[in-house]
Amino acid sequence: MHAPSSRDRVQEVIEAATADGRQALSASEARVVCEAYGIAVPAEGVATTAEEAVALAEGMGYPVVAKVVSPDILHKTEAGGVRVGISGAEEMRVAFAAVTAAARAYDSGARVDGVLVQQMLSGGLEVIVGATTDATFGKLVAFGLGGVLVEVLRDVTFRLAPLGENEAESMLDGIAAAALLRGVRGQPGVDRSALVSTLVGVSRLVTDFPEIVEADLNPVLADERGAVAVDVRFLLGDGEAVSWPAHSDEEILSAMRRMFRPRSVAVIGASAEAGKIGNSVMKNLVNGGFEGEIHPVNPKATEIEGRRCYASVADIEGDVDVAVVAIPAKLVAGAIEEIGRKRIPAAVLIPSGFAETGNAEGQAEIQEVAQKWGVRFLGPNIYGFYYTPAKLCATFCTPYDVAGPVALSSQSGGIGMAILGFARSAKLGVSAIVGLGNKADVDEDDLLTFFESDDATRCIAMHMEDLKDGRAFLRAARRVSPRKPIIVLKAGRTAAGARAAGSHTGALAGDDKVYDDLLRAAGVVRAPGLREMLEYARCLPMLPTPAGENVVIITGAGGSGVLLSDACTDNGLSLMAMPEDLDAAFRRFIPPFGAAGNPVDITGGEPPATYRNTIALGLGDERIHALVLGYWHTIVTPPMVFAELLVDVVEEMREAGIDKPVVASLAGDVEVEAACEMLFEHRIPSYPYTTETPVVMLGAKYRWARAAGLLGGART
Amino acid sequence: MHAPSSRDRVQEVIEAATADGRQALSASEARVVCEAYGIAVPAEGVATTAEEAVALAEGMGYPVVAKVVSPDILHKTEAGGVRVGISGAEEMRVAFAAVTAAARAYDSGARVDGVLVQQMLSGGLEVIVGATTDATFGKLVAFGLGGVLVEVLRDVTFRLAPLGENEAESMLDGIAAAALLRGVRGQPGVDRSALVSTLVGVSRLVTDFPEIVEADLNPVLADERGAVAVDVRFLLGDGEAVSWPAHSDEEILSAMRRMFRPRSVAVIGASAEAGKIGNSVMKNLVNGGFEGEIHPVNPKATEIEGRRCYASVADIEGDVDVAVVAIPAKLVAGAIEEIGRKRIPAAVLIPSGFAETGNAEGQAEIQEVAQKWGVRFLGPNIYGFYYTPAKLCATFCTPYDVAGPVALSSQSGGIGMAILGFARSAKLGVSAIVGLGNKADVDEDDLLTFFESDDATRCIAMHMEDLKDGRAFLRAARRVSPRKPIIVLKAGRTAAGARAAGSHTGALAGDDKVYDDLLRAAGVVRAPGLREMLEYARCLPMLPTPAGENVVIITGAGGSGVLLSDACTDNGLSLMAMPEDLDAAFRRFIPPFGAAGNPVDITGGEPPATYRNTIALGLGDERIHALVLGYWHTIVTPPMVFAELLVDVVEEMREAGIDKPVVASLAGDVEVEAACEMLFEHRIPSYPYTTETPVVMLGAKYRWARAAGLLGGART
Repeated sequence: MHAPSSRDRVQEVIEAATADGRQALSASEARVVCEAYGIAVPAEGVATTAEEAVALAEGMGYPVVAKVVSPDILHKTEAGGVRVGISGAEEMRVAFAAVTAAARAYDSGARVDGVLVQQMLSGGLEVIVGATTDATFGKLVAFGLGGVLVEVLRDVTFRLAPLGENEAESMLDGIAAAALLRGVRGQPGVDRSALVSTLVGVSRLVTDFPEIVEADLNPVLADERGAVAVDVRFLLGDGEAVSWPAHSDEEILSAMRRMFRPRSVAVIGASAEAGKIGNSVMKNLVNGGFEGEIHPVNPKATEIEGRRCYASVADIEGDVDVAVVAIPAKLVAGAIEEIGRKRIPAAVLIPSGFAETGNAEGQAEIQEVAQKWGVRFLGPNIYGFYYTPAKLCATFCTPYDVAGPVALSSQSGGIGMAILGFARSAKLGVSAIVGLGNKADVDEDDLLTFFESDDATRCIAMHMEDLKDGRAFLRAARRVSPRKPIIVLKAGRTAAGARAAGSHTGALAGDDKVYDDLLRAAGVVRAPGLREMLEYARCLPMLPTPAGENVVIITGAGGSGVLLSDACTDNGLSLMAMPEDLDAAFRRFIPPFGAAGNPVDITGGEPPATYRNTIALGLGDERIHALVLGYWHTIVTPPMVFAELLVDVVEEMREAGIDKPVVASLAGDVEVEAACEMLFEHRIPSYPYTTETPVVMLGAKYRWARAAGLLGGART
Repeated sequence: MHAPSSRDRVQEVIEAATADGRQALSASEARVVCEAYGIAVPAEGVATTAEEAVALAEGMGYPVVAKVVSPDILHKTEAGGVRVGISGAEEMRVAFAAVTAAARAYDSGARVDGVLVQQMLSGGLEVIVGATTDATFGKLVAFGLGGVLVEVLRDVTFRLAPLGENEAESMLDGIAAAALLRGVRGQPGVDRSALVSTLVGVSRLVTDFPEIVEADLNPVLADERGAVAVDVRFLLGDGEAVSWPAHSDEEILSAMRRMFRPRSVAVIGASAEAGKIGNSVMKNLVNGGFEGEIHPVNPKATEIEGRRCYASVADIEGDVDVAVVAIPAKLVAGAIEEIGRKRIPAAVLIPSGFAETGNAEGQAEIQEVAQKWGVRFLGPNIYGFYYTPAKLCATFCTPYDVAGPVALSSQSGGIGMAILGFARSAKLGVSAIVGLGNKADVDEDDLLTFFESDDATRCIAMHMEDLKDGRAFLRAARRVSPRKPIIVLKAGRTAAGARAAGSHTGALAGDDKVYDDLLRAAGVVRAPGLREMLEYARCLPMLPTPAGENVVIITGAGGSGVLLSDACTDNGLSLMAMPEDLDAAFRRFIPPFGAAGNPVDITGGEPPATYRNTIALGLGDERIHALVLGYWHTIVTPPMVFAELLVDVVEEMREAGIDKPVVASLAGDVEVEAACEMLFEHRIPSYPYTTETPVVMLGAKYRWARAAGLLGGART
């Protein structure tokens, strides 16, 4: 907390600027603001004549910088309004005349208040510290390398404001050029604590004053003695964040539990006619094996799929936990009204025809009715959802019944179908598959809160095009991710993708770098594409958590060893430097021309025992934390023989209490495909014809484990 | 060509330095060299006293730079031997004393010859121009952004020396920060022709004088008026490149044709005993359907696999084109001697036990004997090779007979088996699969030369860990790639991979950025991993060459459209800005709430006709050059119905002479897998559960087409 006097001084400045009708603070106002929040700025003064400028410069010592002072010119450099390196009185006079003339030439209507004479800081590293107001995430702090480079190379990192000191410190390591801050080629590093304090100061400032919608400290000159903001720009605006109805975790859980584990389900718009959505939903509920009550609602029928049909939900005797709605869009608001009157706490709105088709009013109407009655709802514009522990298929798609630890959600129906097909094909064990569609109410953070408490779920994978309330999601993700890995596929990463998302859901896709940094900081494992999200979801709950960073490759094919090593580097894995005794131990099992070290190259043409012995050694030695295997199909050790020996040795170790992540790449003829399937069934992620995919999976597990603080690394 | 006098001046400088026992040229020598090759340097002079320094500085005008002159100190900045921004006489005197003192403090034994006073160039952009001598590629020129940034961000690009002007120009666009050179935020761009001339000058210099093993112009200050090399360093050394036996293209073709299309094959070490390599080779030759003569050679047998067996190749009547050798390593040299005497021009050396196991002498011996007799050979340490047009399986692996347009090679046996398995599983049509192993003779450029002339081959995919003769490969690749796509998987990309490659083949993996730039400049499509190499090999020959850059996405699932758009951006594809008339034409086929534009979102739940009509429109309009399709599995248009309508409309268009690249992403239940297989059979690359892979394939085709100059872009 800052002393009230600091806040008061900033408050005054803002009020004065606002009263003046200005959106940008002047340089002198900005200086007051910086000083109030502990942000260092250079010595300076404003001169209205050339001689005043000379006097000021001589007071602070040459060299100095001259900058035109004008409320109308934001980009002074572009306007020619800046002169640097002024080293004497005559030069000062010339500069005074030049910058004022340039400013007038740039914009003849600009008011010119004088020339700012500023102490010139030389040397040091130029960095940028900024803050902005994001529609999804609110106040964000940005940090990057200064000058034009940040704009060309986009080497910048973001965090939510306000920042803690550790978080600010993590930003210094969050840029590609981080090494520059630590010093290279005999140059000293910068004063990191000074930069941290600048970042923290800016983050507190914009948090205390939401009306500061943008802050731009560019450049901040940092050297080994400190960090000084040479040029500072603050923009004022409407800092009010869009507020989203907030529910307590208890409220969320109570509604979500009745939605996912209902004793009684109503289907509004149930139909007896095959091909109708309301019929598919009924069939899936009945045939999926749901053991609770199923009540079709349709005024035109008396019985559907062997169940008594009601004219209205009001007619159903007893409590109903969730209503699945499969009627035309224009009837949905009325249905929610009935659902509310019946005190049904949750609804699943399948119909499309709302915001995604431009019908924003219709969507606002159902939100209003639902809020009035306290009804939580999924959708609209969704395929419904699956929850396997309750054998609940509340969807018009085909049933799915391979129960397992992964909960998946998708914003889009097409992606939902891809999830379903992949899950079936890969025998992916699923706790839930949930369509979120327009997310007019229930969104990802509600789901996270439910899956957090759901014992059937150990891993969560989410496809999203946007987040409605970024802060709520990050708060939930940060809480849940250390216990249950959260995988996110964020669509609309690129400008083209964002445009496409715009036309699809009307949702604005945020700047991808913002999502990337914030998701990582919340411990989320981001998937670069759909297939990776699905494969991560398959492998992450299967792989045990590694106890440390030491990865060892054991390979029958030297060529695979090289590619697996490349893949380890690409995926941020550390190949253990092989200790001498362990090297000698491996060598006892492999031919003299084989290579120990790491990869351990057992060479091709070796019998099963060589694989077995080296793998057992790798699993048994506690200095090794994970194994990457490269199998080479030969007559001596055919694929299924390899798979069997591997399962054997891994399960022996598991029984002995040793469970390390093992992944395998199988190079060989088509028999390797069946071997991979068999290995997957025994929780050993294995892929044919690729040296990359198994390592990508191990890398994802490590990313999660590091972010969850399970490998001794700090969460950033 | 430079005037002899320029070369003579450089020759003199080098001779003087060499006579002096120096490896580094002095600053004044470097200046002579630069001037001889048209490389601009700043005004300067050497002062041995402070007063001389003042006189020099006043001659060229302040500000100036002072640098200690010492043959013993290479990194002057690190030694504190540089002062910049000296703006007056007194400062000059102080600087003179300071830099000499700092140099002596840094290295008390260093000889100090004086202080260089140099015109100080201010402003402008710091870039680096360098040259180095690479074991694989010989003389290379490097270009990057200067200062410490190039070292931290590694934003640097390489080309072979000597450079043409267009190639030098391509280097300016070859760095991530290329936009800086063109000018950003009101800053002017640099004089590109001056940089080009510096790059070309350096490249000619190191070509003319191979003994200049390293050149380092750092920084070169570039602004809108020119480019001046402020600090220059040349290192002398043994510039002799390792020479590799050179064969003319005719010689290569003559031997390779007899190897790949023999009329008569001898198998030295043929065996009747199942499980022996010499037996597997015989069986594969016979059962694979090879129609030429097969002569087993084994002194202990009279008949193998129904063929008369010879005690020695010498006993075989008539010509033999190729000998497959399957005997222990220590007998191979003797066998080559016999092969040579029999005038057999080609051998396939399967045995291991040579350089890869440390037996470098054994490998040198077989090279020597083979060269004496003019025998060209594959291997040693290989699985052999397949050539399907001749039904030739000269290998101990399982036979393969799906003939098609792709020739593949691998340096490693394990990768060879992965190629075989994938090919069989994906029904990849293959002309050849070749093991290269230790590459003691035949290597990738020989293969390229053969496949270039081979009508059965339309695409070439190569796995490599190193190149023996990088220049020969690039020359062949540059020639072949515009007609037949060349895909390269370079293993050992990373430091860890390079170390693993070292232990595997004894081959030094070069710096990856060098490979990356040079392969791209030769028109090679580089695959990031094994699976991509295999999928590229499958898709590139299947996809027609696009006529231009305009890609359109047509999708049933809006969510897929977003992910497909992301993938297009990631893969360098341009989504066409939809012309108004075409937009209107699409809208006629899709529901009012569907989105035209690009992606064209036909929305889910549409009947086959909607897919059909929009796809036909996309194929028929000549402004569209390629289609990316996103299918969403619904009851209305099931997967196989979609596949059939797509094949139908694409084949109709093909018959009408319109053949555009079409790729598809299928989101749906498991039936989409069969639909994808069916689409592949009709040359439409299609993948289930992924929005990335189909676009990656189209992107690879575009990369090839651009490099081949087929899209109007310049080859760089």
